[in-house]
Amino acid sequence: MIPEPTVTGPTVEELPGGTLLSVPGLRGAAVACGLKEDGQLDLAVVVADAPRTAAAVTTRSELAAAPVRLLRHQLQVRPRVRTVVVNAGNANALTGPRGWDDAEAMTEQAARRAGPPATVLSTGVIGVPMPMDRIRDGIERACSAPVRDAGLDVARAMMTTDTLPKTCAHVLDVPGSGRAARYTVGGVAKGSGMIHPDMGTMLAIVATDAEVTPAALQRILRSAADRSFHEISVDGDTSTNDAVLLLAGGSGDPPIDVDDARIYALERGIAATCRRLAREIVRDGEGVSRLMDLRVSGARTRWEARRVASTIACSPLVKTALAGGDPNWGRILAAAARAGVSLDEGRLALTLGHQRVYDGRPLAADEDALQRTFAEPEVQVELSLGEGEGEARLLTGDLTERYIQINAEYRT
Amino acid sequence: MIPEPTVTGPTVEELPGGTLLSVPGLRGAAVACGLKEDGQLDLAVVVADAPRTAAAVTTRSELAAAPVRLLRHQLQVRPRVRTVVVNAGNANALTGPRGWDDAEAMTEQAARRAGPPATVLSTGVIGVPMPMDRIRDGIERACSAPVRDAGLDVARAMMTTDTLPKTCAHVLDVPGSGRAARYTVGGVAKGSGMIHPDMGTMLAIVATDAEVTPAALQRILRSAADRSFHEISVDGDTSTNDAVLLLAGGSGDPPIDVDDARIYALERGIAATCRRLAREIVRDGEGVSRLMDLRVSGARTRWEARRVASTIACSPLVKTALAGGDPNWGRILAAAARAGVSLDEGRLALTLGHQRVYDGRPLAADEDALQRTFAEPEVQVELSLGEGEGEARLLTGDLTERYIQINAEYRT
Repeated sequence: MIPEPTVTGPTVEELPGGTLLSVPGLRGAAVACGLKEDGQLDLAVVVADAPRTAAAVTTRSELAAAPVRLLRHQLQVRPRVRTVVVNAGNANALTGPRGWDDAEAMTEQAARRAGPPATVLSTGVIGVPMPMDRIRDGIERACSAPVRDAGLDVARAMMTTDTLPKTCAHVLDVPGSGRAARYTVGGVAKGSGMIHPDMGTMLAIVATDAEVTPAALQRILRSAADRSFHEISVDGDTSTNDAVLLLAGGSGDPPIDVDDARIYALERGIAATCRRLAREIVRDGEGVSRLMDLRVSGARTRWEARRVASTIACSPLVKTALAGGDPNWGRILAAAARAGVSLDEGRLALTLGHQRVYDGRPLAADEDALQRTFAEPEVQVELSLGEGEGEARLLTGDLTERYIQINAEYRT
Repeated sequence: MIPEPTVTGPTVEELPGGTLLSVPGLRGAAVACGLKEDGQLDLAVVVADAPRTAAAVTTRSELAAAPVRLLRHQLQVRPRVRTVVVNAGNANALTGPRGWDDAEAMTEQAARRAGPPATVLSTGVIGVPMPMDRIRDGIERACSAPVRDAGLDVARAMMTTDTLPKTCAHVLDVPGSGRAARYTVGGVAKGSGMIHPDMGTMLAIVATDAEVTPAALQRILRSAADRSFHEISVDGDTSTNDAVLLLAGGSGDPPIDVDDARIYALERGIAATCRRLAREIVRDGEGVSRLMDLRVSGARTRWEARRVASTIACSPLVKTALAGGDPNWGRILAAAARAGVSLDEGRLALTLGHQRVYDGRPLAADEDALQRTFAEPEVQVELSLGEGEGEARLLTGDLTERYIQINAEYRT
């Protein structure tokens, strides 16, 4: 069951102008080292004042990039990170055995210069070896003077085809046995919403000063990612470089473990930051002019609900209908029908905006009202399969001529 | 293993100007009954001089249209068809219980007027009840005077967003125990290549005068469809109305059964007609400006090869790179990596045109030659997974701004 999206409330509040570096104990720096053109920022470091507990969710791609494989290996050995290097412009993916060596060299240099343990996230073009001379120079400069107010620059350095930097922070009160503890959660992300898998698609770094055990942190991240990044990344994580890294610690409070009731409050705060970043990724999707907030319910299992939602959200015909403001519900049901999930057309119910258009059979619809619904910047679509309790939710964008222009003309 | 595409040779020859009705004993007629606008042909009948053995492959959509469900039921009871009604403009899909009654009424009328058994194929918009008054009038007129030279009109009546009618015929010599028998295979199809699932996507009728047992005919059709329509219909058959109907008989020769060596020769001829129609469907795909002939080999199984080929062929990024003439091989491998098939990047080999660009690691490529390859109207792409013997092939088109224009502006 997917909880309600609204997480703002008495315990979670957005921090105006907040960034990843709003989290106490974090500093950062961004430099231009020639991975992108025109002297744009393309490499950043984020450094904590001491090692933090770390958790990650990474791509399910069969061809995970070298830095992703290295990150998994590092966290398996020891879930602690103090320094994160992140670069855009080169994904270090499909670069052969050399890719791993380069990623390892980057972490070793960053650990030496800013403090161990260090890890690395990369995004950019695939199949091109890292220009290590430039990278070494960049890491050297970025590690020399990290500061607290570099949050926006860090976000800018991560951008590839993004048009806007994506960073935010939330403050949350976590009720404890006695007084409530106040923690900060900050995050930064890049990505244009399942739109540019060959550009490494999506990266995010999220941090909090709450102390959390490794097991609890991994559980929190899995849950928060499931109702944020996984609700936009149709088909799950699919690019070579997708990764979300979560760092926790610094407050010195007793750590929150898996059986601690405070885990729920903390998960809410982290999910709030993740959801905000995820929504910004879809909004900034290439050529996206209109969003579809799709809910599928009544499936036999959550997996089946996700499968149906994914198939609808990926359908070029649904996406072009959305672009054209066309409430073409036949396209939505036809897409659902090829998801590989058993359906009964007599049990389906489809609602566009506030209007039910199909309920076991086509209903007479108010065509003008539907047109108005599909002219909105965000369209709500609800499909019930009438089979069980499985639910899923996906936020997706439309498919416009602008998308084709960007991607047909873009040269790696 | 997918046989070579070239089936022309001493035993299979294209019949210039041939149509479905080139098959001896078939006649047809097409009329306009107001399902399409502007008085275009939109309903046809095809009538054999006596009942024919029939086989069909139909959509795997969970929401198969009423005429598809009726066709399956009819062939299960008795695999014989004499009269086929086909209409465009209304798919009779997602039309509730009424849809089945309407489809049955159409077959009953056609059987009465042209000869039983009759069946019906429909294509067009989804979720709108059939306008039975117009349909009845159309069937009446079409059945009144079927003729041998209506092949092109039948093809035109089946069109929805197609820009060209699709029909052809082949003559084949089937070696027997003594003399070779000469048979004709004719076919007609509509469809814009996985481009318009909500318009019922693809319909085809194929016929031959060879006599074949029901079991052999089903086997022949399955095999011929696998290396024709299924090699363009990415994800298999996915719309509500997809159907290929194969009719056989009329020559009076002893029927070919499953253990008869002649089955292979006949399959070759039928596959030739199916391949020709399938290729025309992709070429006529909405907005298609360039084709990609994709072969995936070295998979553990044929299923895995198909899965990888499908994922590549459906990728918007691969399709837009193809539109832009951009030999962006990173997009091809990144798509393969999310097919849900286990891959080893050290074993992959990718060839674009005649140039290998990746062989366990990126290779230095002649960028000018790659550009020229991707400027051709058809691009050959070969991906070997290095795991086993599984192979698959898919012919697909690019994704252009024209596609978006057509589908965003199209109103059902």
